[in-house]
Amino acid sequence: MEFADRLIEARHGKRSIAVLGVDPQLDSSDSLGIPSGLTLTQFCCEVIEAAADFVVAIKPQLAFFEARGIDGMKALAEVLTFARKLNLITIADAKRGDIGSTSAAYAEAFLGGTDFACDALTVNPFLGGDAIAPFVAHVRNGRGLFVLVRTSNPSSGDFQDLPTSDGRPVWESIAERVREWGSGSIGACEMSSVGAVIGATYPRQAHRARELMPNTIILVPGYGAQGATASDAVAGARPDGLGVIVNASRSLMYAYRSGESDQVLSASRVAQAAHDAARAMRDDLNQALAARSAAP
Amino acid sequence: MEFADRLIEARHGKRSIAVLGVDPQLDSSDSLGIPSGLTLTQFCCEVIEAAADFVVAIKPQLAFFEARGIDGMKALAEVLTFARKLNLITIADAKRGDIGSTSAAYAEAFLGGTDFACDALTVNPFLGGDAIAPFVAHVRNGRGLFVLVRTSNPSSGDFQDLPTSDGRPVWESIAERVREWGSGSIGACEMSSVGAVIGATYPRQAHRARELMPNTIILVPGYGAQGATASDAVAGARPDGLGVIVNASRSLMYAYRSGESDQVLSASRVAQAAHDAARAMRDDLNQALAARSAAP
Repeated sequence: MEFADRLIEARHGKRSIAVLGVDPQLDSSDSLGIPSGLTLTQFCCEVIEAAADFVVAIKPQLAFFEARGIDGMKALAEVLTFARKLNLITIADAKRGDIGSTSAAYAEAFLGGTDFACDALTVNPFLGGDAIAPFVAHVRNGRGLFVLVRTSNPSSGDFQDLPTSDGRPVWESIAERVREWGSGSIGACEMSSVGAVIGATYPRQAHRARELMPNTIILVPGYGAQGATASDAVAGARPDGLGVIVNASRSLMYAYRSGESDQVLSASRVAQAAHDAARAMRDDLNQALAARSAAP
Repeated sequence: MEFADRLIEARHGKRSIAVLGVDPQLDSSDSLGIPSGLTLTQFCCEVIEAAADFVVAIKPQLAFFEARGIDGMKALAEVLTFARKLNLITIADAKRGDIGSTSAAYAEAFLGGTDFACDALTVNPFLGGDAIAPFVAHVRNGRGLFVLVRTSNPSSGDFQDLPTSDGRPVWESIAERVREWGSGSIGACEMSSVGAVIGATYPRQAHRARELMPNTIILVPGYGAQGATASDAVAGARPDGLGVIVNASRSLMYAYRSGESDQVLSASRVAQAAHDAARAMRDDLNQALAARSAAP
């Protein structure tokens, strides 16, 4: 089964386009990190289980596991096993990309049969077509890709928006290639298993991206902590409402921090807050989709 | 001490600009992989020890460790510990890059205090300045970076060579930013700890890159198995011979495969072949540098 079809099936089954970003932040001055009394694995699994009814997929951010060394990578493997038991689609947010033989090894790591294997992977197109081809080869085995096209961060325009000699920004050239790379994996749902990443913080680009990539599923980061609204986040959806999934990480994982500070922190409090935040996110996104279809 | 100064000191001490790429390939139809009778860690450490006198640094390619799951990551940690005992500089070839808070976690993973920490890291500039800033922050702690500017693979031109509206290719804009990012970390050697990656397969670009980045150390992949000659590889050196280090991976790790096939494969044969190949590479590069300085 094509990855795109699985994803759309899950979207219909759960009536949700929300994705839970599993980003266990490092401890820092504003005291994110792992809630006291929980292990890294427990924290992630508590949040995943609590949000599972409201999200189509989880998207672990590799950096936050690698930053914890071997123990972090073991936790990642445990988290993925747990998510699969809950029938959640898993998207490794690793943004990998290298010369062909190296990309093939990354594809094996994240789309093959290893401890870290997921259903889909984010990839970086900077090295061009031969760096992406080994990942596309795994799409034939039911795996999915999301290629960075226009990212959500403030400096994303530094190179992605450079105007090329034909007047278009660099990211539009990438979008056209993503359409090509995905043309061989369009599922029954009419969407391709080679998706794109377009930040919610730039809704104007999302419209243009949809024109350039009519059959591409867009993974939208930037909703929640990064400041984009639900309406911004669904700007790239097709008229039928298909074609976008929207990630939030900190606003779900750390939802427990927004409650009253005199409450005792416990696993159940972390879970309850994540549950409520994930449901609210799902509903917020669905309302934005509905408002969009209702608009003239 | 600035990373750049440590690297140049090692270069003078060993009279070498060679870097050993630690790329333990996956088993494949042409039977690369791990020589029978050796573990992953043993294979890498045998080659590292054998080449240590002739190379300034090792550059483990993360993909080949991640593709082996938890066991691979444990092996990476062991290999790094071993290399540090031999006083080798370590460069994590991970090509990471993400939004700021995530890049900060990757910087902690590979330039901080984790099991995977190295002296330097390759990074991908596609997300722009705020994605690179957290890595540059670690340069102040004596760490180094090598930013992808123009890679060695056949499709590298797909986006890196797109002509921008002022007539220059995208990679030249990146080179200018690399110069800026490195301007705060120029050591006693007059070179910056923020380096660049420019493939040896494109020597013409290496000349132009040197003009744009006069104080940047260029890490050159593509020598050996990827087909570039020593003369190509040193094309970006400064007139005084400084400013390039050259990586080879397969031609050193798998040098044992080029011997007579009736020899018994053993750890000592793997090591002897790597030793001889690393020495030959060092000499080849030094001759090319000397020929270059002697040229009118």
